[in-house]
Amino acid sequence: MFGIWGHEKAAELAYYGLHAQQHRGQEGAGIVVSDGKKLKLHKGLGLVNDVFKQADLKKLGGKAAIAHVRYSTQGDKGKGVDSVQPLLFHSLTGSIAFAHSGNIMNSHELRGELESLGSILQTSSDSENLAHLIKRSKKETIEGAIVDVLPKIVGAYTFIVLKEDKMYVAADPRGIRPLSIGKLGDGYVVAAETSAFDIIGASFEREVLPGELIVISDEGLESKRFAIREQRKMCAMEYVYLSRPDSDLNHVNVHASRKRMGAELAKELPAEADMVIGVPDSSISAAIGYAEQSGLPYEMGIIKNRYIGRTFIQPSQELREQGVKMKLSPVRGIVEGKRVVMIDDSIVRGTTSKRIVRMLKEAGAKEVHVRIASPSIQHPCYYGIDMSTRKELIAANNTVEEICEIIGADSVAYLSDQGLEEAIVKDKTINQGVCMACMTGNYPVKGES
Amino acid sequence: MFGIWGHEKAAELAYYGLHAQQHRGQEGAGIVVSDGKKLKLHKGLGLVNDVFKQADLKKLGGKAAIAHVRYSTQGDKGKGVDSVQPLLFHSLTGSIAFAHSGNIMNSHELRGELESLGSILQTSSDSENLAHLIKRSKKETIEGAIVDVLPKIVGAYTFIVLKEDKMYVAADPRGIRPLSIGKLGDGYVVAAETSAFDIIGASFEREVLPGELIVISDEGLESKRFAIREQRKMCAMEYVYLSRPDSDLNHVNVHASRKRMGAELAKELPAEADMVIGVPDSSISAAIGYAEQSGLPYEMGIIKNRYIGRTFIQPSQELREQGVKMKLSPVRGIVEGKRVVMIDDSIVRGTTSKRIVRMLKEAGAKEVHVRIASPSIQHPCYYGIDMSTRKELIAANNTVEEICEIIGADSVAYLSDQGLEEAIVKDKTINQGVCMACMTGNYPVKGES
Amino acid sequence: MFGIWGHEKAAELAYYGLHAQQHRGQEGAGIVVSDGKKLKLHKGLGLVNDVFKQADLKKLGGKAAIAHVRYSTQGDKGKGVDSVQPLLFHSLTGSIAFAHSGNIMNSHELRGELESLGSILQTSSDSENLAHLIKRSKKETIEGAIVDVLPKIVGAYTFIVLKEDKMYVAADPRGIRPLSIGKLGDGYVVAAETSAFDIIGASFEREVLPGELIVISDEGLESKRFAIREQRKMCAMEYVYLSRPDSDLNHVNVHASRKRMGAELAKELPAEADMVIGVPDSSISAAIGYAEQSGLPYEMGIIKNRYIGRTFIQPSQELREQGVKMKLSPVRGIVEGKRVVMIDDSIVRGTTSKRIVRMLKEAGAKEVHVRIASPSIQHPCYYGIDMSTRKELIAANNTVEEICEIIGADSVAYLSDQGLEEAIVKDKTINQGVCMACMTGNYPVKGES
Amino acid sequence: MFGIWGHEKAAELAYYGLHAQQHRGQEGAGIVVSDGKKLKLHKGLGLVNDVFKQADLKKLGGKAAIAHVRYSTQGDKGKGVDSVQPLLFHSLTGSIAFAHSGNIMNSHELRGELESLGSILQTSSDSENLAHLIKRSKKETIEGAIVDVLPKIVGAYTFIVLKEDKMYVAADPRGIRPLSIGKLGDGYVVAAETSAFDIIGASFEREVLPGELIVISDEGLESKRFAIREQRKMCAMEYVYLSRPDSDLNHVNVHASRKRMGAELAKELPAEADMVIGVPDSSISAAIGYAEQSGLPYEMGIIKNRYIGRTFIQPSQELREQGVKMKLSPVRGIVEGKRVVMIDDSIVRGTTSKRIVRMLKEAGAKEVHVRIASPSIQHPCYYGIDMSTRKELIAANNTVEEICEIIGADSVAYLSDQGLEEAIVKDKTINQGVCMACMTGNYPVKGES
Repeated sequence: MFGIWGHEKAAELAYYGLHAQQHRGQEGAGIVVSDGKKLKLHKGLGLVNDVFKQADLKKLGGKAAIAHVRYSTQGDKGKGVDSVQPLLFHSLTGSIAFAHSGNIMNSHELRGELESLGSILQTSSDSENLAHLIKRSKKETIEGAIVDVLPKIVGAYTFIVLKEDKMYVAADPRGIRPLSIGKLGDGYVVAAETSAFDIIGASFEREVLPGELIVISDEGLESKRFAIREQRKMCAMEYVYLSRPDSDLNHVNVHASRKRMGAELAKELPAEADMVIGVPDSSISAAIGYAEQSGLPYEMGIIKNRYIGRTFIQPSQELREQGVKMKLSPVRGIVEGKRVVMIDDSIVRGTTSKRIVRMLKEAGAKEVHVRIASPSIQHPCYYGIDMSTRKELIAANNTVEEICEIIGADSVAYLSDQGLEEAIVKDKTINQGVCMACMTGNYPVKGES
Repeated sequence: MFGIWGHEKAAELAYYGLHAQQHRGQEGAGIVVSDGKKLKLHKGLGLVNDVFKQADLKKLGGKAAIAHVRYSTQGDKGKGVDSVQPLLFHSLTGSIAFAHSGNIMNSHELRGELESLGSILQTSSDSENLAHLIKRSKKETIEGAIVDVLPKIVGAYTFIVLKEDKMYVAADPRGIRPLSIGKLGDGYVVAAETSAFDIIGASFEREVLPGELIVISDEGLESKRFAIREQRKMCAMEYVYLSRPDSDLNHVNVHASRKRMGAELAKELPAEADMVIGVPDSSISAAIGYAEQSGLPYEMGIIKNRYIGRTFIQPSQELREQGVKMKLSPVRGIVEGKRVVMIDDSIVRGTTSKRIVRMLKEAGAKEVHVRIASPSIQHPCYYGIDMSTRKELIAANNTVEEICEIIGADSVAYLSDQGLEEAIVKDKTINQGVCMACMTGNYPVKGES
Repeated sequence: MFGIWGHEKAAELAYYGLHAQQHRGQEGAGIVVSDGKKLKLHKGLGLVNDVFKQADLKKLGGKAAIAHVRYSTQGDKGKGVDSVQPLLFHSLTGSIAFAHSGNIMNSHELRGELESLGSILQTSSDSENLAHLIKRSKKETIEGAIVDVLPKIVGAYTFIVLKEDKMYVAADPRGIRPLSIGKLGDGYVVAAETSAFDIIGASFEREVLPGELIVISDEGLESKRFAIREQRKMCAMEYVYLSRPDSDLNHVNVHASRKRMGAELAKELPAEADMVIGVPDSSISAAIGYAEQSGLPYEMGIIKNRYIGRTFIQPSQELREQGVKMKLSPVRGIVEGKRVVMIDDSIVRGTTSKRIVRMLKEAGAKEVHVRIASPSIQHPCYYGIDMSTRKELIAANNTVEEICEIIGADSVAYLSDQGLEEAIVKDKTINQGVCMACMTGNYPVKGES
Repeated sequence: MFGIWGHEKAAELAYYGLHAQQHRGQEGAGIVVSDGKKLKLHKGLGLVNDVFKQADLKKLGGKAAIAHVRYSTQGDKGKGVDSVQPLLFHSLTGSIAFAHSGNIMNSHELRGELESLGSILQTSSDSENLAHLIKRSKKETIEGAIVDVLPKIVGAYTFIVLKEDKMYVAADPRGIRPLSIGKLGDGYVVAAETSAFDIIGASFEREVLPGELIVISDEGLESKRFAIREQRKMCAMEYVYLSRPDSDLNHVNVHASRKRMGAELAKELPAEADMVIGVPDSSISAAIGYAEQSGLPYEMGIIKNRYIGRTFIQPSQELREQGVKMKLSPVRGIVEGKRVVMIDDSIVRGTTSKRIVRMLKEAGAKEVHVRIASPSIQHPCYYGIDMSTRKELIAANNTVEEICEIIGADSVAYLSDQGLEEAIVKDKTINQGVCMACMTGNYPVKGES
């Protein structure tokens, strides 16, 4: 999610802002701009690069923009371009656009109420729900309507709403999903990850607070509160694997937190070995942290093929069994005859880990000690992390010993809950804690799912 | 370059073999297969993924294949699909296909002779030259003709030739360009880089020797010699930046050699600093080597945007000046207020280095000490490395002090010639030396260019 | 517009049905199918051939379908794929799809009312208006709601609505726009033009009557009336140029009516000439009628280039002035030195006529006598014919003599109002009359536009 | 085939020239231009519109051009883009491009000789053969070499050759294939059909004579003779169906000749009937000629769907049997209950005729009398008309009565040999005769095929 207010190249910067956050959603992308008088939309399925051509950006123009990359959770996978955000609504009195991240837990109920009142909803998007609720609010202003409507919504979310002359930015009462405000010249930018600011040359200003509504216009920035402020519980998985290493979340750099996870892991769970290797890309930081803490050399024992795109022809089952590798391949010249500590950020179903361990053994590794830089995941997420790919959680049904046997490693060990929290939360006066519900089962927001 | 003999999935494996070597050429790709009776070709401009669809591979079929990715040197840039190899020639008595790497220094003279005899050449490809020379040879067999013709050719090259029933593989008398033979089941594979073997599950057998012609058929592998054997002088730039880190060249792993370059660099040129960072991707190994040797922590101070493809819209000059980053961006959370050792594999024109140093300083780095993991490049390459992009060599016209000032670093230093050679050549009984002509001016093969 | 009920190949037949009516709209196309349980949509911008691939039809499947080709009138040109019909709406209790032709004159008022009640409309399509009106109707059944809602609508229109288990078909109270019912096996088909029936092998059953609502289900066909039956006033322009020559409208074959227009024209306005030629394609029938009545030979004096598609590169102004022809070219071998009667179906702005006359003169025609097979168009159409291309009506601002001078002809003459009506309405007991409002100013339906 | 010399928009005009002749070949298209110094080529598979984009024409530029649309005969079908003409050959001393039409009967022998001399031929194209023969000629000039080489060639052909500073145009000794010269401003144009001149605003100058070589340069036009002049025997099938109706071939307009074929047919073979209809598009002229001669009305009894392009999804066998029509459909409103004379230009295998007759009967036609506007085809063509689609000639194996029964008509009759010749050759002092070898077996050129 990305927003920009008050820059002549709003559409171009939104493109680069989306690009910097491409890893957060690869199914579709969209930008809505305002030139002060009307809103214009361009969106499509695929990567940012596929959806936008130079001519599209030129045609958009505009001085303000909101933008989104689509990451689909269970419910709305494969819904086609109609579900790609931002959603843009026209009426005889003006237009309005919506983009959101996260998950509204009571969206089914809200939709049922709206339909019984005679509304027609086109998509199953939470953004459309919000648009209809605001349209039906009795309040006279948009911000009045938003403050009126948000308390009815249960879940973990961030929103950006664009009108011809204003931008509205909001985060849920627990601040589970990240959203930051930056400054670029005289204008403002909004992004889920601060790395988007670095890439467009903007400076970080502050985070959107839990339960805060920020209204941005040519008059500047105005803050409102729509919920009692509670302690922020930023999602721990953002640090573990979701965010870019160069982002700062809640004042903590992600790469640095991962190095600390690796260092904690080395302290808690040392291994007798010749080298440390990481599973590219998200586990490299933790592996270097482990290496530095343990004194073992860090080596490039697994390599990722950079040219694999969506048009890559997957090897047939037959060729795969004959040993044809796809995305990751082991480096025989490095691991042959060696005892290896293999760092990964998490184990979900175990199939990938199993494949990598086998790959390393076939390339001659004498021992493979798997060290996971986070606690085991045993509970579903209701706050916007796709659990459909995390469905058959190996850790929910097996002991660590069983997991070790399944994936064929010589040893397996996980970072402790406390180790993870300490690696992330360096200073309790700044970071009061993180949401680790998928590891601990302790959910900060209650609601039907 | 890739070849395979004696496998039912020859076309598919050629695809994966090319894929593993995609970094060696991104302008075009082609595969010629033999089913024992006739040759079939598919080729096109672009990346391997763009050129080949599942249906193309199915249509090719075949039990043997040769394949090529196009990397254009000065002379033949932008020549269109006709110049994409392999080249396939039909005659009333059969077909023949050619693929080569490297550069033939006397190709202009050879072409002049052929044309004066009444031949029509369609491309400026060295492969076509070779085809015509062989067609005009008086020798009765193809291998006789090859042994007859190769001594007339001056340069650094490797060749694979495919007939309906045989495959011919050759390397130049000094072995400057790499080519290895592997084994896959009962068949053989040939590749410039051994990582292609790992990716398709083949095992490394041996390197093609300088001046050797290998004939592969259903009867097996037969070795011939077309030139007096001289000491191999493998191209040093293959280790410095061209090859994948997971390849072994002349029995030396590339990643390991780069780590040693970094370690040598730390010994020769230490720096008072807080951290070591590498320019992604090719300098990461050297940076880790430097960090381990120096005891400084290795940090992810520069990050590479993974989603930039050929359709990426480059930021305008105006936006670039406002600070919009493209491929690489600095990590403020890491480098702010720190003294940084920045490892790069080489400096060519200096513009990239200048941009990265400025980027780091703008992100708050207190000092930037540039350490180059190879000696300075001051001489042209006649052996197939594209000097058009290396044309305005900064080191050919400036002292190290001037370079330091130009790129805005706090210090700049290069690895010594001896340091590089020692990092690559671990054991003189195996590796007698490398070609470092572009650094030293000492050319192992003489000939007009 | 096309509908089919009760055939296992509903999607494929809808494709051929749309194809047969491609000339009625070339901006976009869509099909919604029902398999009895749910509705599925595929649509896109462009010609039917561009929008649908074999795989799309396979994926649709279904036993019933409604389909549409988009023809944009002034108001909704270039609205993008969202405005392509059918429109499909999902709710928690089921889905519904709408397609319409023609024009609702009070749509702005209807939309204002809906928005003031809290509805959000996504497009400016009349179909969406209808959907919202039906959703808000208090009636319990869809057909109750339709009968409730249609009397509020002012204009000339036809509608097809698809539910999982039923299809609803309706025509406006004056029957200005055509819609027919056919039979195919045990199922039913619906189409604007009967040629669609011929092409899929269906037989014509009857026309949808003015003010009739037909409900089609597995139980068969049921007729309702939502308005007092008035005399049908089928649009005369359907006969003059819009419909295919092989369609029957209101029991009159279009080609035959055009031949009669030509014959009437020959009777009313003979010309001293050597031959009769027609402007391809729509005026060929009238030209042959004129030739047969007058005894002059019909010749191919103008030829249409068949291969011009949307990717055709238009000649530059410079080349056009040098004589480069585009779509139509004269046949010098035919017209050179001859006196020509040139038949056209209508003159709108006069620019095309002027170009053709000049073309014929440059190819050597001695005289060009223009005869128009319909009366002059001097009034706007509120019933769905795009007046944006008919905007600067030459006949509204010039006498026939002036027109003759403007287009450079030797004489110009129009068919009389009575001549056109007689050519179309052969038998008053079957056809009570046609809508000729754009020629006479006599509008059969009153309402704001 | 098209050529232009001495116009600043050579590439654009070549595009329109090709476009006008698109019906002569739809598999591929190419243009080679000369700017006076060097030659540039753009070509591809598909229609002219698909192969050339505005940018391609801009990039070509040039003051002279030769161009070609590919029509494949048996031997070289599906050979891919390499066989698309013009072929462009570069050598160290300059470039040369070739385009040809027709068929060289001794090409296999010529190729064998060239290969035994050490030449490598890339395609099976006759143009490449010619290029190699000219390259190996001992003559000093290109025109000397052409005059030297053409007598070795046996067949029916036309050629255009482009050098940087000259264009060479030639036709075979019997002039079987058409080629004309036109004038455009100060420059020259060359085309197979004169309609290409009309479309670009050029004027017809004269035909290339049998056995003539014309050299065009900035000095003007020079005529040479490479064979004793014999009577021209223009291919009759050009008139019957291959050429556009608006072309003049050997001073005879094609549409006019077709009308005369129809009129001759009406004289020779009258039919008791209610109307005359023609099979679109190529038989419309003959049908009108028949109608005018017989006094019967001409009606539009069969209609051709104009929107069928290469992406059209063909109906499945099942749907076809249920009556789904493709390209042609009958007009029930016209033919129902009527006795119909159906005019077609030729019957090849009979399957199309059978389908059309059945279609008309199913639409209610009482009687269908088939009249063919040419004699029956019983012999192969060695002069460039594709006999692969004419392979199973129904007339070669069946009597007229049997054909009538096979196609289900009420009567079938063919135009006489004399009738066809008279319809084409109006004035023996101008047209000495046509090649009717496929009808009479009387071949004007002898040679192995």
